Amino acid sequence: MNRQVTASKRPASDEYDIVIVGAGPAGLLLSTCLVRWGYKVKHIDNRLEPTKTGRADGIQPRSLDLLRNMGLKSAIMAHEPAKVYEVAFWDPKSASKGIQRTGTWASCPAFVDARYPFTTLLHQGMIERVFIADLEKNGAGVQRPWTIKDFSTCEEVNPEYPVRVEIKHIDGGATETLKAKYLFSGEGARSSVRDKLKIGMKYKSPIVHTWGVMDCVVKTNFPDIKMKCTIHSEHGSIMVIPREDNMVRLYIQIASSTDKDWNPRKTASEEDVQNSAKKIFQPYNIEWERVEWFSVYPIGQGIADNYTLDHRVFLGGDACHTHSPKAGQGMNTAFLDALNLAWKIHHVEAGFADRSLLHSYESERKLIAENLLDFDAKYAALFSQKAPAPKDVAAASARGAEVQSPGAEQNQFIKTFKESCEFTSGYGVAYDPNALNWSASHPARSIIINPKGNKNRTGRILINSNVTRVVDANVVHLEQEIPVNGSFRIYVFAGEPSTTKQALQDLTRSLEQPFSFFATYLRPDIDSVSHHERHNPHSHFYTFCTIFAAKRSGVEISRDVPTVLARYRDNVYADDIWDHRVSDTKAAAHTKMGLDEKKGGVIVVRPDGYVGLVVSLVEGTATADALNEYFGAFASKKLGEVKAQL
Amino acid sequence: MNRQVTASKRPASDEYDIVIVGAGPAGLLLSTCLVRWGYKVKHIDNRLEPTKTGRADGIQPRSLDLLRNMGLKSAIMAHEPAKVYEVAFWDPKSASKGIQRTGTWASCPAFVDARYPFTTLLHQGMIERVFIADLEKNGAGVQRPWTIKDFSTCEEVNPEYPVRVEIKHIDGGATETLKAKYLFSGEGARSSVRDKLKIGMKYKSPIVHTWGVMDCVVKTNFPDIKMKCTIHSEHGSIMVIPREDNMVRLYIQIASSTDKDWNPRKTASEEDVQNSAKKIFQPYNIEWERVEWFSVYPIGQGIADNYTLDHRVFLGGDACHTHSPKAGQGMNTAFLDALNLAWKIHHVEAGFADRSLLHSYESERKLIAENLLDFDAKYAALFSQKAPAPKDVAAASARGAEVQSPGAEQNQFIKTFKESCEFTSGYGVAYDPNALNWSASHPARSIIINPKGNKNRTGRILINSNVTRVVDANVVHLEQEIPVNGSFRIYVFAGEPSTTKQALQDLTRSLEQPFSFFATYLRPDIDSVSHHERHNPHSHFYTFCTIFAAKRSGVEISRDVPTVLARYRDNVYADDIWDHRVSDTKAAAHTKMGLDEKKGGVIVVRPDGYVGLVVSLVEGTATADALNEYFGAFASKKLGEVKAQL
Repeated sequence: MNRQVTASKRPASDEYDIVIVGAGPAGLLLSTCLVRWGYKVKHIDNRLEPTKTGRADGIQPRSLDLLRNMGLKSAIMAHEPAKVYEVAFWDPKSASKGIQRTGTWASCPAFVDARYPFTTLLHQGMIERVFIADLEKNGAGVQRPWTIKDFSTCEEVNPEYPVRVEIKHIDGGATETLKAKYLFSGEGARSSVRDKLKIGMKYKSPIVHTWGVMDCVVKTNFPDIKMKCTIHSEHGSIMVIPREDNMVRLYIQIASSTDKDWNPRKTASEEDVQNSAKKIFQPYNIEWERVEWFSVYPIGQGIADNYTLDHRVFLGGDACHTHSPKAGQGMNTAFLDALNLAWKIHHVEAGFADRSLLHSYESERKLIAENLLDFDAKYAALFSQKAPAPKDVAAASARGAEVQSPGAEQNQFIKTFKESCEFTSGYGVAYDPNALNWSASHPARSIIINPKGNKNRTGRILINSNVTRVVDANVVHLEQEIPVNGSFRIYVFAGEPSTTKQALQDLTRSLEQPFSFFATYLRPDIDSVSHHERHNPHSHFYTFCTIFAAKRSGVEISRDVPTVLARYRDNVYADDIWDHRVSDTKAAAHTKMGLDEKKGGVIVVRPDGYVGLVVSLVEGTATADALNEYFGAFASKKLGEVKAQL
Repeated sequence: MNRQVTASKRPASDEYDIVIVGAGPAGLLLSTCLVRWGYKVKHIDNRLEPTKTGRADGIQPRSLDLLRNMGLKSAIMAHEPAKVYEVAFWDPKSASKGIQRTGTWASCPAFVDARYPFTTLLHQGMIERVFIADLEKNGAGVQRPWTIKDFSTCEEVNPEYPVRVEIKHIDGGATETLKAKYLFSGEGARSSVRDKLKIGMKYKSPIVHTWGVMDCVVKTNFPDIKMKCTIHSEHGSIMVIPREDNMVRLYIQIASSTDKDWNPRKTASEEDVQNSAKKIFQPYNIEWERVEWFSVYPIGQGIADNYTLDHRVFLGGDACHTHSPKAGQGMNTAFLDALNLAWKIHHVEAGFADRSLLHSYESERKLIAENLLDFDAKYAALFSQKAPAPKDVAAASARGAEVQSPGAEQNQFIKTFKESCEFTSGYGVAYDPNALNWSASHPARSIIINPKGNKNRTGRILINSNVTRVVDANVVHLEQEIPVNGSFRIYVFAGEPSTTKQALQDLTRSLEQPFSFFATYLRPDIDSVSHHERHNPHSHFYTFCTIFAAKRSGVEISRDVPTVLARYRDNVYADDIWDHRVSDTKAAAHTKMGLDEKKGGVIVVRPDGYVGLVVSLVEGTATADALNEYFGAFASKKLGEVKAQL
C-alpha cells in the first residue's frame, strides 16, 4: 500500500490502473505485486476456477527465492511439494535387456550458490491458489469466468486512462467497458491480445514436437521413480518428474512433424502411452493406480515478435514464448516477465522513472526468452545424447570447476552442463547492459564505479550472504531482508566502523542535498510515517541496508550509523557469520561480494533483485554523485545537476 | 488413523477413549496426537474461544523441533513470531545516571547442537489456533464453553470405560454424561480435577512473588527493545521479551509476600507499572502506543503431589507445576507432559505395552517439573546477580567450553550458565533410567548394548544429523524423518554396505522369527496396507530407518537393503553430508552418534524422541535379541522367549 506520489484523485468506478487478462503465473504475480503496491487492478480469467489438473509444475531455485521474498514460499511448501536434487540418466543395457542407470547429476550443483539447490514440483493450481489467497487478503481477486472482448489505445482521447477495454462474461451476457492505464495479456500461448495486435510468433524451426504428458500415481519397482529421470530405451524415451502426493509426471515425446494439418491428438491414447511406458521401463514393472491428467499436445519453439507495441498493452509468459516442457522453465520465465514489468509500471506511475523505462521490459525479457529457446534446443540435445561419463559429471559438478585447467574447460559436455545448471536454476539469467544495468557505456562515468575485486555482475542477481541483524541478533539471509516492495535496494557495505566513519557521514550528508535522488523522491507524507515503518520511511523509491564488517556486539547503531541510515534500524547488520564458501575471512558477506573488508562499498539492486551498480564507499561526495548519475539515467527528474556539496 | 489392534467394536455414542478438559497447550497437544492416531476424544474448554490476550508466548528450541515433527511449525512461523537469539544485560551506571548494557549472551549457544538456536515468541492464542485447525482437519474439535461437573472411576462397573464424566455448558443448562477410558486435566493452575482428587500442591517456599506483565507496542530509543533483556536499575528491575507485530512483553517483579491474604492486584495499576518502567529505562525514553494486555498476578513455586492416582485420571501442564514466567518454560513443559502421556496411552490401548507403562508418566514428568523448579530458582538468582564478566560469557558460550581447564570448570557462573542454556533450550531434559531408558540395571543385559564410543544418552533426545534420502536425493534432517506417529523409531546405522551385509541379513531374519517384537506386533491388516505406506507398513509399534555410511549413489536399495528394511524405502539414507561439528569425517551422522563408520549400530528412539537403547549391529542373533530384551521390559506380551534363531 505504498502508492503515494501521483495519488492526485480517486479513479472513477470504471477506471483502473491495469486490466490483467489471464490468471496463470504471469498474470497472478503481476496483480499480486501491483495490488500490494496500492494499484487498482481488474483481473479476469476465462476459467471458472484455478487450474484443476495438468499444466506447469516446476519452481526453480531462483523462483523459490522470489516467492520467499514475496512471503509466499511457506504457503507453497505447506503443500509438501516434491523436491528434485538430482537427475538420473537411464540408457539401454548393452545386452538389449531393458534399461540401466548410467549416471546421476545434481540438478543444482554446489558451484551454483543457491539457497535452495533443488527444483520444487507442485501442481500449478496449488501455486495459483497461493497467489489468489494473497490477492484476497489485500481486498482484490480474479473475476471469473470473464474474457476480453476488445480493446483499443488512444492517448489523445484520454491521456490518463488511454486503454479502453471491453470484457464479457464467457456466457456472452454481461459486459463491462473499462478505462485503464495498462492492459496485460497473460493468456498463454493462444493470446487474443497478441492476435488482435497482429504480433507474430517466430518459430525457430518448422518442426512441431508432440508430447504426451501424464500426471499419475503408479506402483513400480523402478528405483528412481522419485527422482527426475531421462530414460532412453530401444522402445522410446520418457522423462520422469516426481510430484507431490506420491504422484509422478511422465513426459513422452511421441512424434514430430512439419505438417501444419497434422493432428497429433489422434496419435496416442492414454492406453497407448501406458503401453509404451511399460516397454520403456523394462526390466522394471509399472502399473497405474490413478491417472489425474493425460494430454497429448504439440509444441513448437516460438517467440513473439514484440512484447508491446505502444507500452500500454503488454504481453508476458507463454503469450510471448513457447518451448518444450523438459527444462521446466515455463512458469519461472512467466514469473520473471511479470516481476520485470510490475516494478517498471510502478516506478513510472509513482513518478520516479521516465516513461521510457517501460521500453526495457521488452528488451530485457525478450533476450531472456531467446536465451531460453537456444538453451531449450541445447538442453534437448544434451538429454538425447549418450549419457556423460561419470568423471565428466563429477568434474562439472565440483565447486572449483570454474577454475579448472584449460583442457577441462574445452570439454563441451562440461561447458553445456554448467551453463544448463545455471540456466535451469534461474541463477544464470543475465540482463544486458542498459540504463538499469551499469556498464562502461552507461551515462554514469564515475571512476569509483565497479571497484576492483567486485564479484557482483550487473544484470545478475545479488550474491547470497548470511549476516546478523543488529537490533535483535537474528541470523538472516541478507538478500531476503528487503521484501518485493517495488523499491531499489541500496546496500551500504560499511566495512569497519572506525575506517568508514567519515565516508558514511559524507554519503548521508550528500544524500540530503537537493537534487540528490534521495531528496528528490522523498515521500510527500514523510511527516506522518509511523516509526514502525521499516523499509520505506523516506521514500518508496529506495530502501537502505547498512552492513558492517564487525561482530554484532561491536556495532552500536546510535554511535556508528548516521541518522539517515539509522532510520532503517532494522536493516543494520553485522557481517559476522562464517561461510564455508569463503572460510578464511572474518567478513564473509563483504568477501563474497568482492568488497574491501575495511572500506566496504555500495551495491544498488533493482526492485526485482538484479544488481544495477556497484560503487566504492569513499569520503567526499563521489559515492553520492555516482548514485545520482546512475539513477539519473532513468529518473523522471534531473538528478545531481548541482553536484553534491558538503 | 492407525488404531487397529484393539478396534474390536465401535464405541457407543457416549463412550470415548479420553475426555480432555482444557484447551491450552497441554490439552491441545494431547488431543492432536490422539485424534491423529485414531482415538475418539471429547475435548472441552470453559472459554468461549482460544486465548485472546496474555498467557504464555515462548517456544523453546526443542519444542520447535517437536512442532516441526508434528507438521505444525510452518503454520506457527507464518505468524512471523519474534525470534530471540541473544539476551542482553543492563545494569546501573556507576555514576547513577540510568542504565548501561554490561553484556549479552546467546540464548542457545553453539555448544547446544540445536536445529533452531533461538526462542520463538508468539501469542499463545495463535499457537492454540494452529492445533485447533489441525484437530478440525481430522474431524475433531473443542466443545466450548463447557466445563467438567463431576467424574468418578470404577473399574468394576465398566472395565472398558471405567471413567464416568459429567460435563456441562458453563451457562448451567445443558449437561452430558460420558463414559471414558481416560480423563485428562489440562485446566491450568486452578485444576478442578486436581482439587476433586484432593491432590495437594507442594510449595518450595512460602514466598509468593507478584509479577506485573504487559503486552504492548512502544516507542523508545532503548536500543535492545527487540532483544530479550534483563534490566536492573536503581528504580527496580524489568525483563523485556520481544514479540510478533512490533509488540513487546514487559515483566516487572512488583513485590513478594508470605501473607496469604495479601492481594497484590491492588498494588499496581497499569499506569503505576508504566511509570516504574519509565524510570527503569532511563536515560532512554519510552512511550506507549498500545497496551494489549496488562495483569498483576502472584506466582508461587508449586508442584502437584501426584500426576495421577489411578492411571485413568491424569493431570498435566500448569495443573502440575507453577513457577515464574522468567525462563519461558510453562508452555514447553506442558507440551512435553502431554506428548509423554499421549504415546503411553496409545501403546497401552493399541495392545503393545503393559498397562504399567502408564506409571512412568508421573515418574518421568514429575522429575522434570522438580528440575524445572530447581532451575527456576537458580535462574532467578543468576539474573538478579551482578552481570557476568564478558570473558566468562565468552568462555561459557564457546563450543569447546566442555573441555576447558579445571579452573574454568569451577567457575560457578559458567556452570550455571551452561546448564541453564541446555535447560531452557529443552535439550537438557533428561529422563532417569527405567524400563524405557536403558541403564546397566535394565532387564536387557546383552553385552552389545551401549557400545564403546556411543554418544547418545538414554533418556535424552536423539542427536541431530543431516543425511541424504536415497530414493529422491533430498538432503534431510534425520531426526525429523519419522513424524510423531506414536511409533518407536528404530535407526539402523548400517555402516559400510560391504561390511554389514551379513549383520543386516541376520538382523532382519531374526526379526521375522516368532516371539520377536517385530513379528509379535504385526498389523492385523498387513495384507491390505498400501504400498505408499511409508512409516508403518508392518506395525504401528515401530518404524525403521536405515542409514549407510556411503555416498548416495553408492547405495542401491535392491542390492544393499534386506527386504524387511527395504519396505521402508523412503527411510533409507546415505550418511554423506558434511557437518562442521565433525568436519574431519566422511560419515558425519555415524560420527556424531559415536557409532563405528564401518560397522554401524542400532538406536532405538521412543515415540517422543528420547533415546531408549543403543546397541551394536553384529552378525548372528545378538542385535535382535537385545532389541527383544529391551522391548520385553514393557511389552504386553513376552518377547524373545525362544531366542532368535537363524
